[in-house]
Amino acid sequence: MTSIITHAEFNGMPASREHEIKRATAPELDSILGWAFPVLDHGFVRIIDYMGNQDAIVQAARVSYGAGTKTGRDSRSLLRYLLRHMHTSPFEMCEIKLHVKLPIFVARQWIRHRTANVNEYSARYSLLSREFHMPEGDELAPQSSDNKQGRSGDYTETEQAEILRVMEGVCDAAFNVYEELVEEGGISLARESARAILPLSTYTEWYWKVDLHNLLHFLKLRMHAHAQLEIRLYAETIYKLISAWVPDVVDAYDEYILGAHTFSAREMSVLQYALRDIPNLIDGNNIAHLRETHSDREIAAFLDALKWK
Amino acid sequence: MTSIITHAEFNGMPASREHEIKRATAPELDSILGWAFPVLDHGFVRIIDYMGNQDAIVQAARVSYGAGTKTGRDSRSLLRYLLRHMHTSPFEMCEIKLHVKLPIFVARQWIRHRTANVNEYSARYSLLSREFHMPEGDELAPQSSDNKQGRSGDYTETEQAEILRVMEGVCDAAFNVYEELVEEGGISLARESARAILPLSTYTEWYWKVDLHNLLHFLKLRMHAHAQLEIRLYAETIYKLISAWVPDVVDAYDEYILGAHTFSAREMSVLQYALRDIPNLIDGNNIAHLRETHSDREIAAFLDALKWK
Amino acid sequence: MTSIITHAEFNGMPASREHEIKRATAPELDSILGWAFPVLDHGFVRIIDYMGNQDAIVQAARVSYGAGTKTGRDSRSLLRYLLRHMHTSPFEMCEIKLHVKLPIFVARQWIRHRTANVNEYSARYSLLSREFHMPEGDELAPQSSDNKQGRSGDYTETEQAEILRVMEGVCDAAFNVYEELVEEGGISLARESARAILPLSTYTEWYWKVDLHNLLHFLKLRMHAHAQLEIRLYAETIYKLISAWVPDVVDAYDEYILGAHTFSAREMSVLQYALRDIPNLIDGNNIAHLRETHSDREIAAFLDALKWK
Amino acid sequence: MTSIITHAEFNGMPASREHEIKRATAPELDSILGWAFPVLDHGFVRIIDYMGNQDAIVQAARVSYGAGTKTGRDSRSLLRYLLRHMHTSPFEMCEIKLHVKLPIFVARQWIRHRTANVNEYSARYSLLSREFHMPEGDELAPQSSDNKQGRSGDYTETEQAEILRVMEGVCDAAFNVYEELVEEGGISLARESARAILPLSTYTEWYWKVDLHNLLHFLKLRMHAHAQLEIRLYAETIYKLISAWVPDVVDAYDEYILGAHTFSAREMSVLQYALRDIPNLIDGNNIAHLRETHSDREIAAFLDALKWK
Repeated sequence: MTSIITHAEFNGMPASREHEIKRATAPELDSILGWAFPVLDHGFVRIIDYMGNQDAIVQAARVSYGAGTKTGRDSRSLLRYLLRHMHTSPFEMCEIKLHVKLPIFVARQWIRHRTANVNEYSARYSLLSREFHMPEGDELAPQSSDNKQGRSGDYTETEQAEILRVMEGVCDAAFNVYEELVEEGGISLARESARAILPLSTYTEWYWKVDLHNLLHFLKLRMHAHAQLEIRLYAETIYKLISAWVPDVVDAYDEYILGAHTFSAREMSVLQYALRDIPNLIDGNNIAHLRETHSDREIAAFLDALKWK
Repeated sequence: MTSIITHAEFNGMPASREHEIKRATAPELDSILGWAFPVLDHGFVRIIDYMGNQDAIVQAARVSYGAGTKTGRDSRSLLRYLLRHMHTSPFEMCEIKLHVKLPIFVARQWIRHRTANVNEYSARYSLLSREFHMPEGDELAPQSSDNKQGRSGDYTETEQAEILRVMEGVCDAAFNVYEELVEEGGISLARESARAILPLSTYTEWYWKVDLHNLLHFLKLRMHAHAQLEIRLYAETIYKLISAWVPDVVDAYDEYILGAHTFSAREMSVLQYALRDIPNLIDGNNIAHLRETHSDREIAAFLDALKWK
Repeated sequence: MTSIITHAEFNGMPASREHEIKRATAPELDSILGWAFPVLDHGFVRIIDYMGNQDAIVQAARVSYGAGTKTGRDSRSLLRYLLRHMHTSPFEMCEIKLHVKLPIFVARQWIRHRTANVNEYSARYSLLSREFHMPEGDELAPQSSDNKQGRSGDYTETEQAEILRVMEGVCDAAFNVYEELVEEGGISLARESARAILPLSTYTEWYWKVDLHNLLHFLKLRMHAHAQLEIRLYAETIYKLISAWVPDVVDAYDEYILGAHTFSAREMSVLQYALRDIPNLIDGNNIAHLRETHSDREIAAFLDALKWK
Repeated sequence: MTSIITHAEFNGMPASREHEIKRATAPELDSILGWAFPVLDHGFVRIIDYMGNQDAIVQAARVSYGAGTKTGRDSRSLLRYLLRHMHTSPFEMCEIKLHVKLPIFVARQWIRHRTANVNEYSARYSLLSREFHMPEGDELAPQSSDNKQGRSGDYTETEQAEILRVMEGVCDAAFNVYEELVEEGGISLARESARAILPLSTYTEWYWKVDLHNLLHFLKLRMHAHAQLEIRLYAETIYKLISAWVPDVVDAYDEYILGAHTFSAREMSVLQYALRDIPNLIDGNNIAHLRETHSDREIAAFLDALKWK
């Protein structure tokens, strides 16, 4: 950023042109813009556009959290610090826009994340294509008996084939009738009425635009083992893609969110009690291992949490 | 509100008990709480709870918009003033919670209103009932030829019967297979997988909680002639119900939102030009008619907009 | 809830009156409604109204999270489960409205929480009172040298008196000039202009309405040791007050949010490694202690996180 | 957009590379990126970054509102149609990030717009500069007697000078004490405490990021004659700047929002009644004038609203 003070004017307004600035870019992300990454049988995720990059987060943080930004702290450490300490607003300075093709039942879970912008393909105006999701491989499993929200166990190949046959039969029949109902020159039923008979497995498409903070929150919930497998596959794809955009944020996210574990107050007290008399538990090797990535302040907080000196 | 200053304490904290206050209530709304108002073939709207009433709006407005609240202006006039001039924040001080049963394709339009809280029946955990929406009467109409989003024209009774027969056939068959797939002791497919074959006309239920400002915005968009007929029926039901809660707001809403008309800048100039030489256009009768409900300031603004003296 | 099916009508609409329901109440909260709980030198927090109670959360959860709601699980356990597992939407079904008087510099931090409704006293329309916040006791401390955002150390009584004298001098002088500028019949400067010279310590008031989930998030951030002391005092007051509303939620919040500790991925691996060879670390007494409040599933997850059998 | 189907891979994921796409750009906006456009005595607005352009709005609209997007309708007409008919979601596909320097009392009004992302300069961590806003020219006016929120009338030059002298005196004195209090090596009072005595006219800075729909809503409210003059100056600057980004949207905004006028239901009935017997009111010249910019459908709706044939 070169500081050249000149004077300029736009739309009748004088301006001072102190800095030559350009839009923040993420070259690795630029190189995969528009690529369609397949998810499920007919779905995909495409990155269409983005705003900001890691530097934009750091820049915003240095404005807002002066204390966390002392001279000498590099950007990577700062990003880790922000993420660990829930200083979330700088991450909102980055925005990404995706084009996603997904089954309607997945879209219904996805849309619950309200802090995002959406433009969905309209089945009131336009015809839906004969594309619906059929489960495959691991997806096809019995209701879990101990976890009402999950699947567990396996089907034999014969069982799988039979299940898919009846499911596909229902969906195919629905599309046959749909196409018959909306046929121009034929019954020509209003599209918005005819689509009501289509299955929840029908594919839809949308543009989905979200800031990085809310995207990370979406990923946390939707990559969780309790999320439905189908939406998890979308979340995992997006997760892999954003390492082309904000790699150090993804690393910090692995460390402080995905791989982290939270103990309750009572669990902490049990842990502290159990460890009270064990000498040298955290020895030099352990500390050295931590020090590779953790700051002295983090290490002190770690020992403090465990009530070790 | 009697002002009695006494001292009290809660949870170790001293308090001054200056005012005896009770929760704001709306007795007419209390009397219909929990009633199920039917919409479509199996749907309904029930009001479960609410916070605030018209007085709560006025109270908030008198804090925020001193100027609109001069002594002598009654509450009804103030509510009209607030609504006309988009002073929306006092309306956010009221909240309402509905229990709604609705087809999934309606739910998908409804959920686009993001500033609301939702808890929906989960088809991952629980079984869906064999209930789906079939269009009836006016609902059943051909695709409009000049308006891609609408319906127009009529079917003969024979055509209607045939359309319903095939639509019902698809939905019934889907539910047959669904029930077969999820049967405990049988195939016992994971519920979250099996539901994907059910039609978009399947009914779901949710609790939906929203503040009055955002509810009015929802109603404006969803009572509009361009909204799909089915969601319009829900919006119209809610609209009728809230007159038990905030009747003066509903009146003002009719006057300034539903029945209002906006002319573009160029339309305004055409109108002003066309009327430039017509004497006595707005005569005493007209003004008297306006004066029944409009303030002097509103009337002056009306004449000013038309460039009349 | 007695189920009596009768038929009724409102506003031209037929209804089925299956359930007699009343608004959810929280009697203990009702008894302190409107009380002013003092915070800082001139501030207070008053609860004005609320919607919902613990049962409303449970009711919403039983709709949405069937699996977590198996028969026999009591409401208290369910609330703990929801809070621990970030099933946040049922908590959004409760709403609370506060009347708060607070210094403007605190209001500026508070307003950053966007998912809330606010009506603030307007200094454009109305005159501000001569009330400003002066720090007292612990509040008055030097800038921390190792933590750029904090305070540490002490002043002598003489130093304190001198600091307060000069601070009070500035604020008093500002109010003197303000009153002179806005005096009707005198200079009568526009209020919106004159208030610009008043200090950030000037008190303002607002109605603030928020759902319980977002309130808990607000409390988490604003009760944190890194939050500015003044806003912490407001947060702590609110925190104590809501135990009159949702006591089991507050208990769960202590256990799973306030008193909890999160270890990073690497910290977890260090911990697991350090404990790998220690037998009987978590003995029967420890487990018994956990079992008082934690479910078998939680205990299993605890041991699993530590890689103990 | 050339369609070249090839296969590629990123982060272990196969992709189909059907389209070569690049980020949407707005070259005219690029050319003023980072320029500081002065507002008030020390403030400015700088555009830092953006996402999307007019084509991105059109692209999203063609997905969502098929009907409004018939072949042959050009992008400009479509943008006008979307804006007139409150099809707001496509405008949310564009995002802009501003760097703004503004007095705190303006920031307090601005922050009420909740659907935006903010990172503000922190006076807890960092020292505030001796910069405060002093009203000048039109800004300096007496309280309006008939409009409690406004200013009207004039001061003499002598009065103005006197007002500014006392205002400046207060602010200067506050900064003198502030600098004394925070001086390192001196009293060294915590910055977060010392700043409380600074006036509301003190300048702050922030990054503010918002989508185009919410920006237009912000501009509508803050360019309104009832908004405080100081924030209006910021809004007007931003309004002029975005014509470098989305010029056709700005045109449509002038026509359908800024220059439009809304008549209430009763005003409409008065207008219709007054015009009922006037022949040839809207003549060929008028219609020709409308036709320059309005579609046939708009003209029909215009005549229909006035109950003319």
